[in-house]
Amino acid sequence: MPLRIYVINPNSSAFVTAEIDRAVAPLRSTHGPAIECLSLPEGPPGIQSQRDVDGVIAPMLRKAAELEAEAGAFVVACFSDPGLHALREQSRRRIFGIAESGVLNALTLGQRFGMIAILPTSIPRHLRYFGAMGVTQRLAADLPIGLGVAELSDDKRALSRMIEVGTTLKTVHGADVLVMDCARMARFRASLEDAVGLPVVEPTQAAVAMAVGRVRLSCTV
Amino acid sequence: MPLRIYVINPNSSAFVTAEIDRAVAPLRSTHGPAIECLSLPEGPPGIQSQRDVDGVIAPMLRKAAELEAEAGAFVVACFSDPGLHALREQSRRRIFGIAESGVLNALTLGQRFGMIAILPTSIPRHLRYFGAMGVTQRLAADLPIGLGVAELSDDKRALSRMIEVGTTLKTVHGADVLVMDCARMARFRASLEDAVGLPVVEPTQAAVAMAVGRVRLSCTV
Amino acid sequence: MPLRIYVINPNSSAFVTAEIDRAVAPLRSTHGPAIECLSLPEGPPGIQSQRDVDGVIAPMLRKAAELEAEAGAFVVACFSDPGLHALREQSRRRIFGIAESGVLNALTLGQRFGMIAILPTSIPRHLRYFGAMGVTQRLAADLPIGLGVAELSDDKRALSRMIEVGTTLKTVHGADVLVMDCARMARFRASLEDAVGLPVVEPTQAAVAMAVGRVRLSCTV
Amino acid sequence: MPLRIYVINPNSSAFVTAEIDRAVAPLRSTHGPAIECLSLPEGPPGIQSQRDVDGVIAPMLRKAAELEAEAGAFVVACFSDPGLHALREQSRRRIFGIAESGVLNALTLGQRFGMIAILPTSIPRHLRYFGAMGVTQRLAADLPIGLGVAELSDDKRALSRMIEVGTTLKTVHGADVLVMDCARMARFRASLEDAVGLPVVEPTQAAVAMAVGRVRLSCTV
Amino acid sequence: MPLRIYVINPNSSAFVTAEIDRAVAPLRSTHGPAIECLSLPEGPPGIQSQRDVDGVIAPMLRKAAELEAEAGAFVVACFSDPGLHALREQSRRRIFGIAESGVLNALTLGQRFGMIAILPTSIPRHLRYFGAMGVTQRLAADLPIGLGVAELSDDKRALSRMIEVGTTLKTVHGADVLVMDCARMARFRASLEDAVGLPVVEPTQAAVAMAVGRVRLSCTV
Amino acid sequence: MPLRIYVINPNSSAFVTAEIDRAVAPLRSTHGPAIECLSLPEGPPGIQSQRDVDGVIAPMLRKAAELEAEAGAFVVACFSDPGLHALREQSRRRIFGIAESGVLNALTLGQRFGMIAILPTSIPRHLRYFGAMGVTQRLAADLPIGLGVAELSDDKRALSRMIEVGTTLKTVHGADVLVMDCARMARFRASLEDAVGLPVVEPTQAAVAMAVGRVRLSCTV
Repeated sequence: MPLRIYVINPNSSAFVTAEIDRAVAPLRSTHGPAIECLSLPEGPPGIQSQRDVDGVIAPMLRKAAELEAEAGAFVVACFSDPGLHALREQSRRRIFGIAESGVLNALTLGQRFGMIAILPTSIPRHLRYFGAMGVTQRLAADLPIGLGVAELSDDKRALSRMIEVGTTLKTVHGADVLVMDCARMARFRASLEDAVGLPVVEPTQAAVAMAVGRVRLSCTV
Repeated sequence: MPLRIYVINPNSSAFVTAEIDRAVAPLRSTHGPAIECLSLPEGPPGIQSQRDVDGVIAPMLRKAAELEAEAGAFVVACFSDPGLHALREQSRRRIFGIAESGVLNALTLGQRFGMIAILPTSIPRHLRYFGAMGVTQRLAADLPIGLGVAELSDDKRALSRMIEVGTTLKTVHGADVLVMDCARMARFRASLEDAVGLPVVEPTQAAVAMAVGRVRLSCTV
Repeated sequence: MPLRIYVINPNSSAFVTAEIDRAVAPLRSTHGPAIECLSLPEGPPGIQSQRDVDGVIAPMLRKAAELEAEAGAFVVACFSDPGLHALREQSRRRIFGIAESGVLNALTLGQRFGMIAILPTSIPRHLRYFGAMGVTQRLAADLPIGLGVAELSDDKRALSRMIEVGTTLKTVHGADVLVMDCARMARFRASLEDAVGLPVVEPTQAAVAMAVGRVRLSCTV
Repeated sequence: MPLRIYVINPNSSAFVTAEIDRAVAPLRSTHGPAIECLSLPEGPPGIQSQRDVDGVIAPMLRKAAELEAEAGAFVVACFSDPGLHALREQSRRRIFGIAESGVLNALTLGQRFGMIAILPTSIPRHLRYFGAMGVTQRLAADLPIGLGVAELSDDKRALSRMIEVGTTLKTVHGADVLVMDCARMARFRASLEDAVGLPVVEPTQAAVAMAVGRVRLSCTV
Repeated sequence: MPLRIYVINPNSSAFVTAEIDRAVAPLRSTHGPAIECLSLPEGPPGIQSQRDVDGVIAPMLRKAAELEAEAGAFVVACFSDPGLHALREQSRRRIFGIAESGVLNALTLGQRFGMIAILPTSIPRHLRYFGAMGVTQRLAADLPIGLGVAELSDDKRALSRMIEVGTTLKTVHGADVLVMDCARMARFRASLEDAVGLPVVEPTQAAVAMAVGRVRLSCTV
Repeated sequence: MPLRIYVINPNSSAFVTAEIDRAVAPLRSTHGPAIECLSLPEGPPGIQSQRDVDGVIAPMLRKAAELEAEAGAFVVACFSDPGLHALREQSRRRIFGIAESGVLNALTLGQRFGMIAILPTSIPRHLRYFGAMGVTQRLAADLPIGLGVAELSDDKRALSRMIEVGTTLKTVHGADVLVMDCARMARFRASLEDAVGLPVVEPTQAAVAMAVGRVRLSCTV
């Protein structure tokens, strides 16, 4: 099974890619498939707007085209799933987006999922996507943590605010499971689960786990 | 009222732009706003795939940014509404997409709208979009005309096939109104209406009409 | 283009009709179509109950029948869209209801629309209508301003309360756009937009703008 | 228990009222409540259009107001449920519409209900109503029998066509239960059930049965 | 009309069965059908978990099989409707579940129903059920009373808490009608209605009333 | 990583369990987790009715309780997901149902999924379940293969019929991906994919793949 799973972080942040790499490490095994995480140098440092989302599609598709021959699957590791369907057209491999996979995994963990959004401006984009997925009925609520860049880079402050939002999603909106909308926050998953008392889906893990399964199955059947 | 409505055809086909220009002519008046239709030279000759859709966003946004100062509204004249939300972020003007406007206008003309898709591969993209819009319940069905390029360029053959599909949407799927997914077909609207016996929405007309109204209202209120 | 758009205010209040007339003035042009607003003397002073809604249908249909020959379109200017579908049956002209048009326009301005209802008893009627339209998924919430007649006639008090409700719709319920359920409130639109920081749809303007476009298009195609 | 259930057939046809009377006879008992069926002389001979639906509301409300003192419940016996919500406002009694009750009863008899519509023009009205009720997901399909007046009055022809449509709803559209959209067809219920092999809801029976239960419960609790 | 309606309380509590018996007493008449309420000795004292729900199905089916010959209808008197569809397979009689019937009756009494749940853990189960019924759009909210066993057995405390929850459902979530998720609470219905000012559906009454109607109709048509 | 995934086939057929075992073999690796498939001797030879579904819950829960200490996850390997939520209550392990996982995986492979049902009587059960999952909007259609037991055991005949149904789901109903409702058919997956030209989800594979991922992630994070 020589095929790899390429996890494309479509921003240029090596820090985020390293965080993703750490998050998906438990999914590696000697039997493969290998899992390789990479940044997109042409991408912005962070993907914050719809323009950012749309803008990374072309370089992401180019990168994926280069990797096609060695790939068993691609994971697009940005919660807006930029270029997901264009990549599905272009590639013959299995393609996963972390928003799609993250939400679908959440549906196995609770009846209503609560979204923790980094930015309030992402929420309409999320809602359009959940509508396109046809899963709106399962959404408890989508709430922003609403921190500025400085506060976000303060881990203690960021986690504390995620716990507040997660608790509101649980107690006020009836969420049974939480989904984080950012690959950058994977290291908080366990703490957030403990503090809020709900399962928390880290969407990159969810997507890569599905990719591993699909690659193993398609290689042998 | 010096402001203009810019209708951006995001493909490079002057033929299509001319067709759009003719279609929206009845919406022009000396009281304005002016309506200017333009092609996007960087775009492909036609937008057929999700990749094409995503690929025209960047040049479309650049073109719109250049025109921002003179613009009262922008209309994105491709049925996939490429870059609609990115343009809404970027611009302070009113922004219309022909798919969004076309479908919303259809909802005033019948309880169930039938989509006539040029290409079968566009249908999943349409369905994602109608889901994001939250209007799936009003869709009768979305059927492709399924002609190759050569047949499509034969007007008689194209219209004849559109009439067949429109009739199926009406009699088998209960559509009360039809929507064409292509700005290139505006000239067939009247013939199609007559032959099928249902109102037909030409989406560029629908979007430009909404834009004219919004510009007039926002200039004076 | 000799055809007129008749905007039928189905209550008997000349004050409301004058308010509507002022609101749609920017949509008039020498190229037409002319826009004529009229009250229904047989209607009640205000339409507040389902009984009122149903009761104005017959005189509204009679009035429309008298005007049919000169009409290019009719706009039913009460947010319950009384008799909309009966008028569509009766007339060969294009027919618009201000609730239908107002909500559909709101869908181009934000992902979730917030309804500002004058009376709490109108809310179930709204919800039935949004269900019939199939757009419930896009509703943020529908909240009443809950003022008595005396307070409503105090403009300052009414606007202040609309701002409170609009702000709640935005901050608590996540609305991105607001819709007013009353033609009587058009003069508050700009102030409400500024104070809340969201676009506000005045539904009579939305409907007449769509009617103007449809008339211009159907006259010439 | 002196209170009566008034079943108001809002058309003027004594034939239809007699059919309804016969259909609900099994629901009468000496313990009451009494069930009285009446025609509306001001109504049209049959209710076929939205205009007819809207037009009978005023006389129906007047008739109900006269009967209020003796009434325990009212049943509006036309499948468009004309004036249902206005009557709920006006009256302090329990109010049932045969469409609402018919469909809700069907939901206890099968996962997807198939509608047999007398007239094709009723179907969009049905769909708006099912949308307002929020039960569209349970609809298999809504198909017209499409017979002219002469054929409809030929019982054998009418039943034969209902069986054809019911069979199509079952085999092509997956309906598990059928609903007739007309009180005039009650006498065909048993034959239709036998021929198609699905339960058939006669909506007047469904509504009156619910009314009997509600009256008995509210008289004593 | 010798056939009986068997109301099977699938727990072993004679107290609850007596409460049900009292609640449905107004639905009895000398003309029948007789209504017989019975406990299930094999059931747990109360049904609180999904395991409890699933666990009572087998003994409930056995009991129903024994009673089939004398039965005109069965009512499964637990708000999770355990075994409803298995019983519909097994039996040739009409089958009603109190959750299904309770919710459907609520839909005739208000546009949005509010659920009063005894236990918070029941809410995801309710939501799955309302999704299966396809009526989620009509749900205002589902809130738990959240009392321990000791407090629940204190009638004054229980009613007071139900009134609090009912008032929240009305004022915060816009419910127009309330549904209680427990047959054990029937005696509070009238007090709850008065205190909250909304109709309250006691689901066992709703189901038995529907069963009475169905039995009377099927015996004679 | 000593924890195992137990795949409980809740029927007693060793043949089916062997089929499942073969289907999930590619998901095994030396790094674990181990995957153990087992039959339920107390179950029926095949699960065909709602009664069968409900009846296997108790023995399945008992078996899972015995295995809890060694388990990392459980997979309930019957397409009706019997006891899924009761097992989630009872167990502290991750729980997967093959219907839930199969459908969610299908949502990553196409916009509309087509269900191939062995028995027509399973379809209403499927629809209830998809409603509870809130994914009905993504369903193209659910069609039965409609073969008797004898024909089903004839592999050639069964596959040929599955291809016919799959082709209808694709061409008539617009399915982009197919889901089989039976663990017994895993060996046909590849042939069905090739013949119909759509991806086919074998739900046991989908569920076990998700379970492997979840176990690996939860063991180490």
